[in-house]
Amino acid sequence: PVFVDTIQVSAIAERAEKALGDRVLLLPTLWLGSSHHHLDFPGTVSVLPSLYSQMIKSVANCILDAGFKRLLFLNGHGGNKVPAAQALSELVCESEKADDAYLLLCTWWELNPETYREGMEAEGVAHACEYETSLILALRPELAAVDQIREGPMALNNDWVKTEGPGSRVSVFRRFRRLTASGSMGKPTLATAQKGKRLLEAVTNDVIRLVEELAEWPELGAIGPDSTRSKH
Amino acid sequence: PVFVDTIQVSAIAERAEKALGDRVLLLPTLWLGSSHHHLDFPGTVSVLPSLYSQMIKSVANCILDAGFKRLLFLNGHGGNKVPAAQALSELVCESEKADDAYLLLCTWWELNPETYREGMEAEGVAHACEYETSLILALRPELAAVDQIREGPMALNNDWVKTEGPGSRVSVFRRFRRLTASGSMGKPTLATAQKGKRLLEAVTNDVIRLVEELAEWPELGAIGPDSTRSKH
Amino acid sequence: PVFVDTIQVSAIAERAEKALGDRVLLLPTLWLGSSHHHLDFPGTVSVLPSLYSQMIKSVANCILDAGFKRLLFLNGHGGNKVPAAQALSELVCESEKADDAYLLLCTWWELNPETYREGMEAEGVAHACEYETSLILALRPELAAVDQIREGPMALNNDWVKTEGPGSRVSVFRRFRRLTASGSMGKPTLATAQKGKRLLEAVTNDVIRLVEELAEWPELGAIGPDSTRSKH
Amino acid sequence: PVFVDTIQVSAIAERAEKALGDRVLLLPTLWLGSSHHHLDFPGTVSVLPSLYSQMIKSVANCILDAGFKRLLFLNGHGGNKVPAAQALSELVCESEKADDAYLLLCTWWELNPETYREGMEAEGVAHACEYETSLILALRPELAAVDQIREGPMALNNDWVKTEGPGSRVSVFRRFRRLTASGSMGKPTLATAQKGKRLLEAVTNDVIRLVEELAEWPELGAIGPDSTRSKH
Amino acid sequence: PVFVDTIQVSAIAERAEKALGDRVLLLPTLWLGSSHHHLDFPGTVSVLPSLYSQMIKSVANCILDAGFKRLLFLNGHGGNKVPAAQALSELVCESEKADDAYLLLCTWWELNPETYREGMEAEGVAHACEYETSLILALRPELAAVDQIREGPMALNNDWVKTEGPGSRVSVFRRFRRLTASGSMGKPTLATAQKGKRLLEAVTNDVIRLVEELAEWPELGAIGPDSTRSKH
Amino acid sequence: PVFVDTIQVSAIAERAEKALGDRVLLLPTLWLGSSHHHLDFPGTVSVLPSLYSQMIKSVANCILDAGFKRLLFLNGHGGNKVPAAQALSELVCESEKADDAYLLLCTWWELNPETYREGMEAEGVAHACEYETSLILALRPELAAVDQIREGPMALNNDWVKTEGPGSRVSVFRRFRRLTASGSMGKPTLATAQKGKRLLEAVTNDVIRLVEELAEWPELGAIGPDSTRSKH
Repeated sequence: PVFVDTIQVSAIAERAEKALGDRVLLLPTLWLGSSHHHLDFPGTVSVLPSLYSQMIKSVANCILDAGFKRLLFLNGHGGNKVPAAQALSELVCESEKADDAYLLLCTWWELNPETYREGMEAEGVAHACEYETSLILALRPELAAVDQIREGPMALNNDWVKTEGPGSRVSVFRRFRRLTASGSMGKPTLATAQKGKRLLEAVTNDVIRLVEELAEWPELGAIGPDSTRSKH
Repeated sequence: PVFVDTIQVSAIAERAEKALGDRVLLLPTLWLGSSHHHLDFPGTVSVLPSLYSQMIKSVANCILDAGFKRLLFLNGHGGNKVPAAQALSELVCESEKADDAYLLLCTWWELNPETYREGMEAEGVAHACEYETSLILALRPELAAVDQIREGPMALNNDWVKTEGPGSRVSVFRRFRRLTASGSMGKPTLATAQKGKRLLEAVTNDVIRLVEELAEWPELGAIGPDSTRSKH
Repeated sequence: PVFVDTIQVSAIAERAEKALGDRVLLLPTLWLGSSHHHLDFPGTVSVLPSLYSQMIKSVANCILDAGFKRLLFLNGHGGNKVPAAQALSELVCESEKADDAYLLLCTWWELNPETYREGMEAEGVAHACEYETSLILALRPELAAVDQIREGPMALNNDWVKTEGPGSRVSVFRRFRRLTASGSMGKPTLATAQKGKRLLEAVTNDVIRLVEELAEWPELGAIGPDSTRSKH
Repeated sequence: PVFVDTIQVSAIAERAEKALGDRVLLLPTLWLGSSHHHLDFPGTVSVLPSLYSQMIKSVANCILDAGFKRLLFLNGHGGNKVPAAQALSELVCESEKADDAYLLLCTWWELNPETYREGMEAEGVAHACEYETSLILALRPELAAVDQIREGPMALNNDWVKTEGPGSRVSVFRRFRRLTASGSMGKPTLATAQKGKRLLEAVTNDVIRLVEELAEWPELGAIGPDSTRSKH
Repeated sequence: PVFVDTIQVSAIAERAEKALGDRVLLLPTLWLGSSHHHLDFPGTVSVLPSLYSQMIKSVANCILDAGFKRLLFLNGHGGNKVPAAQALSELVCESEKADDAYLLLCTWWELNPETYREGMEAEGVAHACEYETSLILALRPELAAVDQIREGPMALNNDWVKTEGPGSRVSVFRRFRRLTASGSMGKPTLATAQKGKRLLEAVTNDVIRLVEELAEWPELGAIGPDSTRSKH
Repeated sequence: PVFVDTIQVSAIAERAEKALGDRVLLLPTLWLGSSHHHLDFPGTVSVLPSLYSQMIKSVANCILDAGFKRLLFLNGHGGNKVPAAQALSELVCESEKADDAYLLLCTWWELNPETYREGMEAEGVAHACEYETSLILALRPELAAVDQIREGPMALNNDWVKTEGPGSRVSVFRRFRRLTASGSMGKPTLATAQKGKRLLEAVTNDVIRLVEELAEWPELGAIGPDSTRSKH
C-alpha cells in the first residue's frame, strides 16, 4: 500500500511519546516526503530532494525559534535520508542558533540493525520487504494485499551495491522502475504480523532510550577557533 | 594542511587512471567542495551543500550529454558525501538520460574499510587522523607539520554517535569548532609514511577493480511501470 | 490550540469523502502550511509563502502525472490562500497538462458565507473566532481552554480593512502580533458546540455538492489562439 | 489593445497625485507584470508570478530603506493580484522594517465596486470588458478598434465560478485561451467614453480618499508576544 | 535627478522609432533596473543583478515566443550592462529558439564613443557627468538643479581603473558611496543643452543605422558540431 | 585541446606568485567555469553563468571571512567574464564586508592589449587563436595537434560586432557552433612557441605589477551618504 512509511514511523513515534510522557513533544508526521524515484509507480505524491531539504530547514528553524535545543528527526523513508541530512548540515552552517542546538537525524531501521534482524530471514530493511510488510501486518493488516505479493530478483545486486539491505560500498542512483518490476524488494512473502510486532517493540524501545539519553548529552560550546566573524 | 582531501583523492585517481589506461577518462579533481562546517578554521574555501549539489548536477549533465553512460564520482571529502548524493538522486528523477546511465558515487575510505584498517590503530577514517596524516606523509611529507600535531578528546562520542570513525547510528550536525579544539580528530600522532603507502595502494586497487567491474555491469532498462508520462 | 485549521479541514474532507464514496479520492491533509505571520506566537511550525507554493506545485504535478484531471484543493488556513493560488496560477502557465485539467482551489468558509452565518453573531470567519472555536467545541472539545479565552479589539479595523471578517477593499500585510494581543480575533466567547455542528454540516454539504458538480463540468479545450509555441 | 492595464492605472494614479500634491510621492507605473496566462495571445510581455513577487519585494524594500512607512501599491492588472500579495505577505515575515510599516495593496476595481457599477450593464470588471473598454475610450480612443470587438460566451461560468465579474466562490486556474476565443470577456460592445469618464473619476476619488485616510491610520506596535527572537 | 537613465534612453529610442517607422517595434522602457550600488543615495528603486537577469530573460522569452528573431536591447544604465549580458548569454545556452535569433545588447554611449566625444571635455560617459547632464539640459532642463551641482575628485582613479570614463583594464566593485561624495562623477559643470542636443542626435543616428543593418545580417545556422543532444 | 584556459591562466598565476613571494597568496585555479556556449563541442564540462556567479560569490565570501581585504580574481576564460562580474557586483551590494574590500576582476588579455599584440598578426585574443595556440605551444606543446588546425571565416564579423578580437560596439549572444565550424577563431596557424613565451612573460609582468600596486591603493571609506540603514 501507499502511505506505509508514514504509518510505520507514526506508530513508532506515538508509542515512544506515550512512554516518554512530558519529557518529549511530538510533532505530527510530515507525510509529504521525497519519493520521486517511485513516481513511475502510480499513487506517489512527492517533492524533489532539494525542496524537501528546504521544508526540513524551515521546520527546524521554527522549532529552534521557539526555544527548543534538542531536536530529533525520526525518519522512516529511505528517500528522505539524504535531503534531510542536506538540510541540517546546511542549517548549522548558516545559523548559530542551529549550531548551538542538538539536531539529530535517524532512520528507524538504522538504530539497531543487529537486533532488528533477529527472527528475520532477510539481512536488513529494503523496500516493501519482509520487515516493512511485517510491520503493516501488525499495524494495518487490512491494507496488505498478501495474496498479490510478487517477489522477483533485483536488477542490480553485487559485491559493491546491495539493493536488498545494508552493506553497499558505493551508491547507485536509479529510479525504482529500473531495479524492481513489482515495486517490492527483498522477501515480503516471509512477512508475519508476529515479526512485525516484535520489530515495532524493539525499534520503539531504541527510540525511547535515544530520547532519554539525548536529554543528558552535554552542551557543546565552541572549543575551536573563535568565530565572531559573520558567516554567509 | 589545507588541500589534504584534494591531494589524497587526486593521488588515488591518477594512479588508478595510469593502471586503467584507455579504459577510463579522468577529469581533474574539483577542489572546491562543501566545507562550511570547517569555515571557523582559517583557510577554508567552500560552497554550501545546496550549491555543491548544483555543481555536481551540472558536471554530470555535461558528461551525460557528451554520451558517456558509466560515471564514477570518486569522493575524498566527508562534507561532499551528502550533497553529491543529493545531486545525483535528484538528477535521475529529472532526466531520463541520467536514469538510463550508471551514476556511481563512492568515498574512498568506504570502499573496503576492513582492509584499510589493517596495520592501523584507529577504527576508521575521521578527519586529520591517523589515516589521513599517513597518506600526507606518504604523498607530500613537506606539508605535514608533524611536531605541531595536537590530539584531544572529541567533545561528543557515545554509543549512538561515533565522531572518530564509522559506526554512528544517528547523525549529529555540528560545525567542527564544537567537536574538536585543534581541528584534528582521531589519532594523527600514530601516522607514518609507511602506513600511508600501504593505504594508498589498497584504495587504488579497489578503485581499479571497481572501474573494471563497472564496465561489465548490465544495462538496466525500465522493468517497472511504463513511464511515458512526462515528469517534472 | 495549535493544529486547529488541520483538525477542521480534515473533519470536513473526511465527512465529504465518506458521503462521496468512490467518486472521490482524498489525500491526507498537509498540516505544514504557511503561517509565518503567526510565528511570534509560540508553537507555530511553518514554511514561507514561496516555499509553500513550491510544495503545492509539486503535489499537483504528481497527481496530474498519475492521470487525474479534476483536482480540488480544499483549504482551511488563511495563510495558505495566496501561496496556493500563486502555485496553481504559475503551474498552468508552465504545463500544458495542468492547463488541460481542472485545478480548483477553495477555502471552506468562502464556499457559502451567507449560509454559514446563520445563527452566528459575527459577520464571518476571522481567526480563533466564534466560528473556529465552535468547530473545535464540536470536534475536539478537550482542546478548547474555554476559560482562558480572551477577546480584545483589533488594532486595525476600518472602512477599508476588515480584520474580523469579510469585506476588505484593500489588503494590509502585518504579522498577527501587530493586530491582536491574545492571538484571537472576532468573538470566540460566543462559540458553542451546537453552532460548530451546524457549521460543519453546512460546509460539508457544500463540499459534497461542489465535488459532484465538478465531475460534470465540461472539458475546456483551447478556443483561443493556437499555442503550439513552446512556453517557458 | 495591449498596454491597457498600464494606461488605466497610470491615469488613475496621476490624477490622484495631482490632487494630493505634496502629500504623496508617486512612482512610475511598472508595466512589466505577470500575464503568462495571456501569453497565447500575441503581444504579451510578462514574468511568471514568482518572479513578479520578487520584483515587488525588491521595490518595497528599496522604498522602506529610504525611510517611508506608508506604501500603497495600486494595482490595475488581475494577474498581479496574487503575486503582489505573495510578495508583501512574505516580506513582513522576513523583515521587521516591513512589518513596522503600512504595506497596502489594492486593485482599483475592488475599491468600491457598487459605485463603479452605476450606469454599467455588466456586474463587474472582467477583462477587455464594458468597464475596461469604456476607460480606454475615455483615455486613448485611438487605440480602441471598436469595429473589431467580438463578444462571445465564456467557456466556464457557473454557480461556483464567475469568469465575467465578481462573486466566485472557488478559484479555477486556466490560461485565457481556454476561457475566451477572442480574448475579451464580458460586454465590450456596451462601452462608451462617457461611462469611462465617470468610472475614472469615481475610482480616482476613492484613491484620493484612501491615501488621505492612510496618512491618519494609527501606528501599529507589537501588542502580541515579544518577538526578539530572530526570524528566518 | 533620479530617473535620468530612463529619460535619456527613452528619448533616443523614441526618436529612432519615429525615424524607422514600421521597420521596428519599440517596447516601453523598463525603468526598474539594477542600481543597488546607488542605494545609499536616497530615491533609488532597484533590483539586484541576479533578479534583473531573470527579468530580461523573461522579457526576451516572451518576444521570442511571439516569433520575433531580431531583438535589440538598448541599454542606458551602467548597472544593467552585466546582468543583461548574463541573462542573454544564459538564455542562448538554455533555448534553441534564443540561439537561433539575434539577441543584441548595446549601451548607447558605447556605440560610437569617438564621435560622442566631439565637443566634450571629458573622455567619456561616467555618471551624472558632462554627457548625462548635457542630455538632461536638452531634454528636461527643469529637472537639472544646475546651481547645486557639486564636483569632486573620485576616490579611486589610476592606471588600471578609470572611474570617470572608458579605458579600465581591471574591474573594481564598490558601491558609489565609496567613490564619490556627491553622487556625481566626471565634470557635470561643463554640461550645456547644446552639447546634449548634439549628443542625442549622434546616438540616435547610430541606433537607427544599427537597426537598419541588423535587419540585413545573415541568418546564422549551426555550422559547428551537430547538437541534437538535449541541453540542460 | 580542452583545458587550455586553465593551463594558461595557471601558468601566469604561478609565475607571478613565484616572483611575488610572501606578498601574495595564490589559490589553485578553479577549472570548472561557464562554457555552456561551447557545449555543442564534445568534451566541455561547464556550469551555467548564474551558477558560476554563485560559486564566485561563495569563494569571495570565504576569503573575506578569513580577513583578507585585497582580492584579485585573475580570469582566463571569456565565458567567465560576465558571470564573475555579476557575482562581485551583487556581493558588494549585499555585504558591507565585501564593499569594504578590494574585489578586483581582470582577464589576462585585457591587462595590456597593445603590448601583447607586438609580434602578433591578429588584432587580439579570440578563442583557439594565434595568441592561445602560441601559449599552448610554449607551455604544453604535446597537447597541440598542430597538423589538425583548421581555420575558417567567422559566420559573423562586421562593423558592430568583432568576433575575432576586441572592438565590438554591441554584444551578440550565440553558441559557438553558430560562429565557427571548427571551434577555432582567429588565426591559429600563425602560432609559434616563441610568440607564446613572449606573451606569457608580458602578461606575467603585468600581473606582478598590478598586485604590487594594489597593495598600495588607498582604503576607500564611505564618503557618500551615511548608510546605516540595513540593506537587503
